[in-house]
Amino acid sequence: MDTESLQKLCKVVRHNILTSTTAAQSGHPTSSLSAVELMTTLFFAGFLHYDLDNPKNLANDKVIFSKGHASPLLYSLYAAAGVISHEELLTLRQFDSVLEGHPTPRFKYIDVATGSLGQGLSMGLGMCLAIRHKFGAEREFSLRSNHNLRFEEERRELSSKDSHSQKLPKVFVLLGDSEMAEGQVWEALQVASYYKTSNLIGILDVNRLGQRGETMLGWDIKTYEKRIASFGWNTIVLEDGHNISKIVTAFESLNVQTSEKPTMIIAKTVKGKGVSMLENKDNWHGKALPEKDLPQALKELGKVDITLRGNISKPTFSLEATGGEKKRVNLRQNLSPINITYKKDDLVATREAYGEVLAELGKTHSDIISLDAETSNSTYAEKLKKTAPEQFYEMFIAEQNMVSVGVGFSKYGFSPFISTFAAFFTRAFDQIRMGQYSEANIKLVGSHAGVSIGVDGSSQMGLEDISMMRSILNSIVLYPSDAVSAARLVEELYRHKGISYLRLTREKTPIIYGEDESFPIGGSKVLYQSDKDTAVIIGAGITVHESIKAYKELQKQGINITVVDCYSVKPLDQDTIRRLASVSKKIIVVEDHYPYGGLGEAVAQAITTLDQRPETLDHRPWTFTHLCVKKIPRSGSPQDLLHYEELDAEAIVKAVVSSE
Amino acid sequence: MDTESLQKLCKVVRHNILTSTTAAQSGHPTSSLSAVELMTTLFFAGFLHYDLDNPKNLANDKVIFSKGHASPLLYSLYAAAGVISHEELLTLRQFDSVLEGHPTPRFKYIDVATGSLGQGLSMGLGMCLAIRHKFGAEREFSLRSNHNLRFEEERRELSSKDSHSQKLPKVFVLLGDSEMAEGQVWEALQVASYYKTSNLIGILDVNRLGQRGETMLGWDIKTYEKRIASFGWNTIVLEDGHNISKIVTAFESLNVQTSEKPTMIIAKTVKGKGVSMLENKDNWHGKALPEKDLPQALKELGKVDITLRGNISKPTFSLEATGGEKKRVNLRQNLSPINITYKKDDLVATREAYGEVLAELGKTHSDIISLDAETSNSTYAEKLKKTAPEQFYEMFIAEQNMVSVGVGFSKYGFSPFISTFAAFFTRAFDQIRMGQYSEANIKLVGSHAGVSIGVDGSSQMGLEDISMMRSILNSIVLYPSDAVSAARLVEELYRHKGISYLRLTREKTPIIYGEDESFPIGGSKVLYQSDKDTAVIIGAGITVHESIKAYKELQKQGINITVVDCYSVKPLDQDTIRRLASVSKKIIVVEDHYPYGGLGEAVAQAITTLDQRPETLDHRPWTFTHLCVKKIPRSGSPQDLLHYEELDAEAIVKAVVSSE
Repeated sequence: MDTESLQKLCKVVRHNILTSTTAAQSGHPTSSLSAVELMTTLFFAGFLHYDLDNPKNLANDKVIFSKGHASPLLYSLYAAAGVISHEELLTLRQFDSVLEGHPTPRFKYIDVATGSLGQGLSMGLGMCLAIRHKFGAEREFSLRSNHNLRFEEERRELSSKDSHSQKLPKVFVLLGDSEMAEGQVWEALQVASYYKTSNLIGILDVNRLGQRGETMLGWDIKTYEKRIASFGWNTIVLEDGHNISKIVTAFESLNVQTSEKPTMIIAKTVKGKGVSMLENKDNWHGKALPEKDLPQALKELGKVDITLRGNISKPTFSLEATGGEKKRVNLRQNLSPINITYKKDDLVATREAYGEVLAELGKTHSDIISLDAETSNSTYAEKLKKTAPEQFYEMFIAEQNMVSVGVGFSKYGFSPFISTFAAFFTRAFDQIRMGQYSEANIKLVGSHAGVSIGVDGSSQMGLEDISMMRSILNSIVLYPSDAVSAARLVEELYRHKGISYLRLTREKTPIIYGEDESFPIGGSKVLYQSDKDTAVIIGAGITVHESIKAYKELQKQGINITVVDCYSVKPLDQDTIRRLASVSKKIIVVEDHYPYGGLGEAVAQAITTLDQRPETLDHRPWTFTHLCVKKIPRSGSPQDLLHYEELDAEAIVKAVVSSE
Repeated sequence: MDTESLQKLCKVVRHNILTSTTAAQSGHPTSSLSAVELMTTLFFAGFLHYDLDNPKNLANDKVIFSKGHASPLLYSLYAAAGVISHEELLTLRQFDSVLEGHPTPRFKYIDVATGSLGQGLSMGLGMCLAIRHKFGAEREFSLRSNHNLRFEEERRELSSKDSHSQKLPKVFVLLGDSEMAEGQVWEALQVASYYKTSNLIGILDVNRLGQRGETMLGWDIKTYEKRIASFGWNTIVLEDGHNISKIVTAFESLNVQTSEKPTMIIAKTVKGKGVSMLENKDNWHGKALPEKDLPQALKELGKVDITLRGNISKPTFSLEATGGEKKRVNLRQNLSPINITYKKDDLVATREAYGEVLAELGKTHSDIISLDAETSNSTYAEKLKKTAPEQFYEMFIAEQNMVSVGVGFSKYGFSPFISTFAAFFTRAFDQIRMGQYSEANIKLVGSHAGVSIGVDGSSQMGLEDISMMRSILNSIVLYPSDAVSAARLVEELYRHKGISYLRLTREKTPIIYGEDESFPIGGSKVLYQSDKDTAVIIGAGITVHESIKAYKELQKQGINITVVDCYSVKPLDQDTIRRLASVSKKIIVVEDHYPYGGLGEAVAQAITTLDQRPETLDHRPWTFTHLCVKKIPRSGSPQDLLHYEELDAEAIVKAVVSSE
């Protein structure tokens, strides 16, 4: 498409933006208008390669609107491509429409949800790594047995000029200037240049105005350039982001094949471009034109041929995801248990078992990817690095980027295991939250949970992590107490698709299960039970061991209790818990976590929803006790801390015996 | 102290680091050793001004160890200053010691907790802004009535060369190179240069090695310099971070008075410096020397005069915080209610009431600071910007930095109100979590909570925020349903000291309370009650209005229900809830939030801990129903969404009537 035609098409796109947002009477027309030329040129001048008939074609380039509020532009582009009718476009933001206020994968050409700013570049980076991995993966895999293909070599090879890399699909990410304030963008910038993802192309729409006024840098595109270049990126500056021939030149100059660097196109633009009453004006963010002003605005566009359509180039080849994907899903679902050799009473940390099983699994499952935030010698993710080095990515201390990279990987069918200390996942809560809207498949693995880490002190203790991970609507939260259950739960994590969390303990704990035991999601283990029990102790992870100690101590005193290992915190084994609650006088939950949103409240909720009619009332538990972390912890030995917080065997015994 | 004496003192500091970590058999000696010369010179060569006898002196400079794991160095410096005995130093990491594994304010010379990396610079920035504010505040305040002092002018004035700014205390922040991967550091860098906090001095200890290997940039200090300079900072590069005379020159060249920029000293150092078996070696992060190796390590230090002590210069003047602080606390506690003029049934958004009351309060309370992440026209923080412009700080879209800046402000006695969309506080969960260990006083205000925001879609909906904010151990969570309660709860927030959260609604809701009503923390309002009630509806915020509608609908059908406005989600009004539960057959909680960790589980926990002995059993509620957000939401009208998620009056009526 030539410049003149593109200009005409830009008018159609502007027309679409204005009419759809005015119809919705909300949305972000001005933020959409500033990037019309940039994106219309990308889409329709032959730079984007995308098969509209087959969004699953692995050879497709990808487009992410990191500035998700510019969704009216996104939809308007697809309307201009002929795959959304004008009628459908006018359903923008309506309940039954897939054209949501901010992009979600409910619209079939969108891969990842955006709208919380600053996450798009990271997800794009994840996709670029996935693409590179995918395009070299089979060869890697067959070569691995020779143990001579290091990840570093692979990387060099793929970023070289051979025909292989010329075919690498690109990921284009549209960024707003306001979101450059988000630290995550700078995390993505530095990690992308470290990994030399030359197929990652950012388009920075510097329209000067944020939601409530000027951004920190305004139109100072020179400073943007300096900053981004210093982070190891190629930069292309467009003094006029509305000049189509200059934009064409910029896209033409992209040297994905020859460069080792990702590229950022930095364009000075005008917010509200094309409509004088909106152009470069304050107080027009996130506001639609009133219906009365629409005719005047449309008039300013000049003659618009609304029947004009653009063509998006198809990729030069086609690579179907389905075959390999089906095989992988099958492999995952029929996974045989990894052979483990832990012996009863041996002391093994659950985090170590995690590392061992992941390393084994990774050898035979090339879709497993390990991302770790500079803690791989603590989380034991380093074990996979040894068995399958090209499946391990050091993500450095940048948890936000790490989680979003995982989301990106998962959109290409990979199964990312993302690990750091449990406490530090709080850094990426927004990214995890958004992951559920991207329909991501990510396995979050948090080690060093609870006060039982001891000497490192409160900053390193995951004490809100169960609450955080439970709060994600459809998440899974698993918490093994020994190496056997940890091993089996890693397998469950791998089988599961969605957002899941595995909570791991720093301390070595004794093996309590035989290797044949299975640990399905949603289950629990009743470790001790008799018909003379005076209380039910529900623990998970480290507190299971304190509960066992308490059981043994109480046995000596002739007191019997039930002990439950509630390894599946979410979904909770409600049946077992309700059954036990209905025959017990006393329920005691003990967890190494703050009081709110954890195992205790999950159990309380389960018990409360018991049928409570009078005829069943004589079976209610009389008391419910919640032992948990109720004081701000500090440095000390693990046992000091468990004692201080009243989570140890002594506290459990006391809770059982009190008011007996 | 001359170079030679400083060198001798460095040996003492190294001796302290090695002996204390070996005694603890844990800790981070190598990360401490790399910064010995940098920090010993800062402390004892006259560059740091600090009154060890009066940590509350506002004229003190501040030191923050953002690389908190270097705490053995921190304690060793104070031992070298003579305020920690060697005996006490050897209690490092023990349960009864204030010398924790990572710094916390339990040790009196520490202001803020660190240990989750990348937060120190932001807290330092908050302190610098607080210092500047404090040192100009009284004058500002008296001038404000003339309405001629704009914040921008104030800023220019204070950063100019007059005697005033020469006295500004400095904040020194020690950063590790690994933590430069954290996006928050880059957020702090850009906001600090924007606000021209020339009294913020970073010291970047580039020791090349992270926890598990080399950092992204290794010893490439030139690239660090380029990046940091591009973010608007002065940079001073030290090719040898162990050369004391060069370090002295660096500190001497700091031009806090004449520069408008903050400064970063970038020093190439050797991890484990001074002990050959540790120097620049992998696998020595976070490990203490075994006892058997200690003698050899100490021998390498050469002759150490462990009685040698250094002197920290005192500030040239003294400014007591106590007087003003007491007055302010008094003012806060005896706060008279702000005059409000809302009329019953008027439609006013709670977020708007927030803005109005904050603007009023701010006029007469100079300790109120408003920080907002580019959303002030949505959160209505902009109203304060009009009434007290110098108390408002635009924090741009960088929520992590914003919260940590608030923590810094609060350490100078300010009361920061920190606002953005409820959803986006998930971005700063780690910073909030760490805030509790810093003993911060921060008021988090999240607008646009719940699915009732409607058309903007899921990415903008705060649906995990109650869970997140409840999970902080001693937090307060308030959730007003109308403008009157919102107004009063803002006042409660201001009176409260600690970490608190106010959840606000986008939609306008009808006024239901008279202006004389009070809303104490921990309370609730029973809106309707009779002795014929068949159910108790517990709502908060937007669902209170749906509950009222349901009440009126049921009245028509001759069915009576109790309706409770549970505006204090944490602490919960357990007495009222238990009392109602003990006389009701049916409890229905309805909340605009996902099922986990919110109001529903809080109520379940309260009911479960009811006395459940047989003699009281006939008073249990028979059923507990939790109406909440159980499906992934999307764009649509607020009423569409409330209906889809079964949170509207219709759903409540159905829940009451079902199984009647």
